[in-house]
Amino acid sequence: MNHKILKVKSIVSANSDSEILDDHAIEIKDGKIKRIFPSKEINALDQSADILNFSNFTLVPGFVQTHVHLCQTLFRGLADDLELLDWLQKRIFPFENSHTKSSLRTSVRLGLNDLLTGGTTTVLDMGTLRHQEIIFEEILNSGIRAYAGNCMMDKNDLYPEFCESTDWNLKSTYDWAKEFHNKNEKVKFGFAPRFVLSCSEKLLTETKVMMKDFPGSIFHTHSSENKSEVETVRKITGKENIEFYDSIGLLDSHTVLAHCIHVNEKEISALKKNFVRVAHCPSSNLKLGSGIANIPRFLNEGISVSLGADGAPCNNGLSIFNEMKLASLIQKPIHGPTALNAKTIFRMATIDGAKALHLEKEIGSIETGKKADFVLLDLEKAYLPLQSENQNIYSSIVYSASKEIVKLVFIDGECIVDCGKCIKYDEEELISDGKKELSRILV
Amino acid sequence: MNHKILKVKSIVSANSDSEILDDHAIEIKDGKIKRIFPSKEINALDQSADILNFSNFTLVPGFVQTHVHLCQTLFRGLADDLELLDWLQKRIFPFENSHTKSSLRTSVRLGLNDLLTGGTTTVLDMGTLRHQEIIFEEILNSGIRAYAGNCMMDKNDLYPEFCESTDWNLKSTYDWAKEFHNKNEKVKFGFAPRFVLSCSEKLLTETKVMMKDFPGSIFHTHSSENKSEVETVRKITGKENIEFYDSIGLLDSHTVLAHCIHVNEKEISALKKNFVRVAHCPSSNLKLGSGIANIPRFLNEGISVSLGADGAPCNNGLSIFNEMKLASLIQKPIHGPTALNAKTIFRMATIDGAKALHLEKEIGSIETGKKADFVLLDLEKAYLPLQSENQNIYSSIVYSASKEIVKLVFIDGECIVDCGKCIKYDEEELISDGKKELSRILV
Repeated sequence: MNHKILKVKSIVSANSDSEILDDHAIEIKDGKIKRIFPSKEINALDQSADILNFSNFTLVPGFVQTHVHLCQTLFRGLADDLELLDWLQKRIFPFENSHTKSSLRTSVRLGLNDLLTGGTTTVLDMGTLRHQEIIFEEILNSGIRAYAGNCMMDKNDLYPEFCESTDWNLKSTYDWAKEFHNKNEKVKFGFAPRFVLSCSEKLLTETKVMMKDFPGSIFHTHSSENKSEVETVRKITGKENIEFYDSIGLLDSHTVLAHCIHVNEKEISALKKNFVRVAHCPSSNLKLGSGIANIPRFLNEGISVSLGADGAPCNNGLSIFNEMKLASLIQKPIHGPTALNAKTIFRMATIDGAKALHLEKEIGSIETGKKADFVLLDLEKAYLPLQSENQNIYSSIVYSASKEIVKLVFIDGECIVDCGKCIKYDEEELISDGKKELSRILV
Repeated sequence: MNHKILKVKSIVSANSDSEILDDHAIEIKDGKIKRIFPSKEINALDQSADILNFSNFTLVPGFVQTHVHLCQTLFRGLADDLELLDWLQKRIFPFENSHTKSSLRTSVRLGLNDLLTGGTTTVLDMGTLRHQEIIFEEILNSGIRAYAGNCMMDKNDLYPEFCESTDWNLKSTYDWAKEFHNKNEKVKFGFAPRFVLSCSEKLLTETKVMMKDFPGSIFHTHSSENKSEVETVRKITGKENIEFYDSIGLLDSHTVLAHCIHVNEKEISALKKNFVRVAHCPSSNLKLGSGIANIPRFLNEGISVSLGADGAPCNNGLSIFNEMKLASLIQKPIHGPTALNAKTIFRMATIDGAKALHLEKEIGSIETGKKADFVLLDLEKAYLPLQSENQNIYSSIVYSASKEIVKLVFIDGECIVDCGKCIKYDEEELISDGKKELSRILV
């Protein structure tokens, strides 16, 4: 039986009161959080549980990233100092197009290893055009919680080889959705037409119709990332990007739009009235020179904002710690130093990510009855705050930490990362595989 | 005899051709780099040297930080989400004012441990008002290369307790300079009047005169960091900040100005014509909401720009890796994705830092005859680029790495950090000391 009691230093709950519980224990049974209680009460409990002592570690909810590209991990460091459209045309499209099943598998494993060892327990992945079954196989094998789906593209002026017909896209998407949506309790389908520049209106609207056959699925695409992209969208559609999506009925509470940087007032209203989820990717937005999304404004409007590391070649990591820190810091010169404080950012990376994916009843906070997705952090390092008092915990996690403080990761109560290493992967082997695959692709 | 040969995977030289040498070795004798040569030639050499095999590691010059506050390390995480003047008035001035010799010593040790384990081998430190001898003692003991000096303050409207008379400042500064300037080959004096708001004109000008008694010393202050600060400077002096410094003769090639965010054309000309050194602190500038300095413009004008982490409470770390990444990323939404590429930034953190401090003949690059200040990095991790080819090394270091990849650090050929840990410090003991000191100060 999967029955454990973990004794920890503090629990940063991310519940509605943002409670921080010092010297508490958490009881896990059958993958769920059965009880949260002061550690000193442990002795009185049923001794049938394994009692694990992590009293130097801080327990936080598993982090949620609502925009990643696992297929790109292999290309980290190979597409630097370029603008979005150049970046796609000269590097990312040719690279993704060259993926074999084997190189894709390695790329996805490298990405999952990076995400899991960094404390991310749930992702929304954009997939790639071909061989999507490989991504699902690896997600299922890794134990991560995920929405995922093939990246749909039925046109591509930037790199014509890298697209397929509208019918091929619709048919294969339907088949993959049928096979993998709700494959197990952790894996759901995220329909992923890439962006306006690679999708016909027919592909976009028929995908939205298709979603009705897959209740609980997500519609996941990019929007308003780059000025040249937005201009091209305007030329093609006569509309602003989000305005166009709204006009063809794509926007609702199951829509996740990555980026949303270059948006006007009308588009902000459209995001708000349709309960659209914004996936904010600060590292990527800076590195590609795309701009800085007006996140404080979105939050004031009550628009859902969560975080994503995007792909490894535009970041160049997949660490939620980088995204949290940057999400806070980049707003402060514009909106002042109190904007997006550490607690707000921490919630954005946990419970708000869960809400974005309609998973807030299951994950995103440490509460009795929820699934046991959580991370144990070692905050006891010289470069972190020296006080263990509650007011410092958010600052410590958001402003000082990096992924190296992640010690253990649990998903559904199962230990996925121990001593900072993924149980399922041999990191050295992954790197060696990565080098081999890359040398074949880059020939 | 101090005679070693280190065999490494690559040497990222930061020499004038930015050479990267694969499979090379470096011979160190009496603290200097005696020879750099292909590893395969090792056998033919004098066998009297210790031959050390680090062929999985990449060797880079020791990093240089031209603006830090070691005395503030103890206060990391205790001054978040505040603007500069509030941050000083409510937190930093009261904290610095409350330092005992013992708490100051612990703070400096924590800072030095953080800097050294992060690969920083040379710093320019701003010191604090009182007990400066403690900072020098700890710098001397640590083995770091440093310019340092007491922070001078003869007025303080924000927190009146935290200043001393003009005469006290001048006298004690002279005494400390006399004792510690050129105390050994690594330690020099950096005169450090804090900023206009805490220094009378007399203090500033007499300090500049005093420097003549200490050839090779540096004049180190803050400038043009925050909009309210700049307005107050304007009220007090009738001038812009840098314009005021120029008008009273403070600016020359031995002047290091931290920040330089809110500057006009005339001030940029003053920086240029006087060969002033700008210390850029991107984390701090973001976190305090100060703004983004126009670094690409400064570089176009040929103005010296180097990097600093500033103090732990406005960052909240002291890692050069964070500063390198941010220095690049924050310019890209403004100046485009090709601005401040990874190689430019790497040079800014090494040879350009050395040039800022007039140490470029001794350190800042890996060249025969220079002092043996260098760092060994482990770039072989899953989250770093999978190619070992030269074009990826800068990207790997600047965009993907964190201080955890620093494995060994040498200063003057002496190993200061081994296996990622400072030889001189017991990190657990430092943390424990820090907690004790902090609990006394915060009573």
